[in-house]
Amino acid sequence: MQKILYTNDITPALHSLVDSLAPASVHIVTDVNVATEVLPRLDLPWSVITTPAGDSAKDLTSLSAIWSSLIEQGATRRSLVINIGGGVVTDMGGFAAATFKRGVRFINLPTTLLSAVDAAVGGKTGINFLGYKNEVGAFAPADAVIISTSTFSTLPPTELLSGYAEMIKHGLLSSAADYDSLLDYDISSAPLGELLPLLEKSVKVKENIVLQDPFEKGIRRALNLGHTAGHAFESLALDNNSPVPHGYAVAWGILVEMILSHLTRSFPSAQLYRYAGYLRSQGYGAPAITCKDTDRLIELMRHDKKNDTPDHINFTLLDSPGHPVIDCTASTDDIRSALDIFRDLMGL
Amino acid sequence: MQKILYTNDITPALHSLVDSLAPASVHIVTDVNVATEVLPRLDLPWSVITTPAGDSAKDLTSLSAIWSSLIEQGATRRSLVINIGGGVVTDMGGFAAATFKRGVRFINLPTTLLSAVDAAVGGKTGINFLGYKNEVGAFAPADAVIISTSTFSTLPPTELLSGYAEMIKHGLLSSAADYDSLLDYDISSAPLGELLPLLEKSVKVKENIVLQDPFEKGIRRALNLGHTAGHAFESLALDNNSPVPHGYAVAWGILVEMILSHLTRSFPSAQLYRYAGYLRSQGYGAPAITCKDTDRLIELMRHDKKNDTPDHINFTLLDSPGHPVIDCTASTDDIRSALDIFRDLMGL
Repeated sequence: MQKILYTNDITPALHSLVDSLAPASVHIVTDVNVATEVLPRLDLPWSVITTPAGDSAKDLTSLSAIWSSLIEQGATRRSLVINIGGGVVTDMGGFAAATFKRGVRFINLPTTLLSAVDAAVGGKTGINFLGYKNEVGAFAPADAVIISTSTFSTLPPTELLSGYAEMIKHGLLSSAADYDSLLDYDISSAPLGELLPLLEKSVKVKENIVLQDPFEKGIRRALNLGHTAGHAFESLALDNNSPVPHGYAVAWGILVEMILSHLTRSFPSAQLYRYAGYLRSQGYGAPAITCKDTDRLIELMRHDKKNDTPDHINFTLLDSPGHPVIDCTASTDDIRSALDIFRDLMGL
Repeated sequence: MQKILYTNDITPALHSLVDSLAPASVHIVTDVNVATEVLPRLDLPWSVITTPAGDSAKDLTSLSAIWSSLIEQGATRRSLVINIGGGVVTDMGGFAAATFKRGVRFINLPTTLLSAVDAAVGGKTGINFLGYKNEVGAFAPADAVIISTSTFSTLPPTELLSGYAEMIKHGLLSSAADYDSLLDYDISSAPLGELLPLLEKSVKVKENIVLQDPFEKGIRRALNLGHTAGHAFESLALDNNSPVPHGYAVAWGILVEMILSHLTRSFPSAQLYRYAGYLRSQGYGAPAITCKDTDRLIELMRHDKKNDTPDHINFTLLDSPGHPVIDCTASTDDIRSALDIFRDLMGL
């Protein structure tokens, strides 16, 4: 089981974890941006392995370079890897650690809100391969994760909004009260100091779901809320050479799937207007789509890897905030209607 | 836990396993030799992924080619990989399966005695990396392993002797009676039909040890018997451009470690003469060493990855057949004496 620490005193927390794990050696894996902007402030005494930044660098070449550096730095089976960075670093550094000498221990220190609430916790590691996202990887939980908001101050607002969309998702899975408190917090202007308790609650929602289903055979699929439609928006934007932040696509995807939940289940219509209003007020913008993109979006949903067969598009839907239902499907007609209503609510 | 089947009717056994696992698709991973010599006889209806043969092909390039072929053949998370071959195929195919889409199910069908008794069972998968053996990999047990002697008839005697050394090791770990029955069987001339029950007993020794300690934190290290000195012989031969079969090196290493067990523990001297005589009678030959190689061999043992520090050379020793002791160490003087006695017993 993963040990998760919530603190804004990162350096003492890391030293204390390293002392308790008593590794033969310690190796920090990070990317070029974090190495410049965050590492100097943390003042850590350990070897550093730096990878290129960005999702396009989450590949076999970078992974192989991490393994090589571990060998050069003399890492043994009793060594410890500390991944410091966003989701690319924790996914790839975690996979490197999970496979180096058949597995060495590792700690994740996510430096973005998105990775804190999503990638760093839950044991999914991996790299992209031949253009497929996370096509190669392993389920390998970190020995410890440090959740902190103290590295978020340098993040652009886009990054914060992107991560906050995953927090809203966790609120929707957890309870109406959690969801309400998230919509009440203003991520675009509120002080970051107030974020840590909300983040702790959010990470615990994910932790709790992962504990029940580490290998995603059932309830863990609830975490896919917003992601079937969200991935379709993300892929369409990528194909059109105007990529959108993952969290924005998820934020929009949640609305599409709330609408589907309303059309096919009991999800209340008032909640649709409330959430659409929230998206507009926070500056999530909207996908660049028209009614002409509907068939394309449905086709992209059909090829989502969460589906068992292309005939059955898998969604996590909601009966109401706090009441998710996994393994739902929807007809092409329902998805088409949902996308029409979505464009309407978003003013497209 | 791994399901292990002992049978010489491979094809029906595979069909029945596939039926019970009900995979979305089936992908055989094998090497060029097995594809030519064994696969046609098995008459299996599934897609085949063929890798180059030999330990030098157990690398990132071949691994990457297996992942690519799985994608091309449309493998999903619910697909099944069947590794058919020696240790290179089961190690690398197992690792490919364990990491493709964060893990798909796989079956091992070892086609050599060495892989049947060693690599195919126990969950160690991996590849060589930058010249280091099994430097990258995962602990990932196969969903099922089929142990059969029916593919051994085409193996050269060297291969059988090599595998039999690991069976002798299992006998030494298990009981005096098991060990005796192995020395009584003549692997170089006895009919293969009589081998299956001995092999079953031998695989169960390993299975039992692995069950107690899947991640090699303790008792599983007993399986290293013969391997500290054995790896040194293997590395020396490789450095001298005259590689020796792994099992031969282990067979010789067992004798060195029996001698150390005699020098530092209670292992009876009569057993040394008996085992040395057995090695000579079966045609295991002897390593090409003289007293001038002693320092080099000790240096190689010092750098064995089983050691926690280079100052402490880790051995599994024996109080007597059936009574192993893990995490022993020995002084340089004792190792030097053991190598002197070894050369003596081997007539070098």
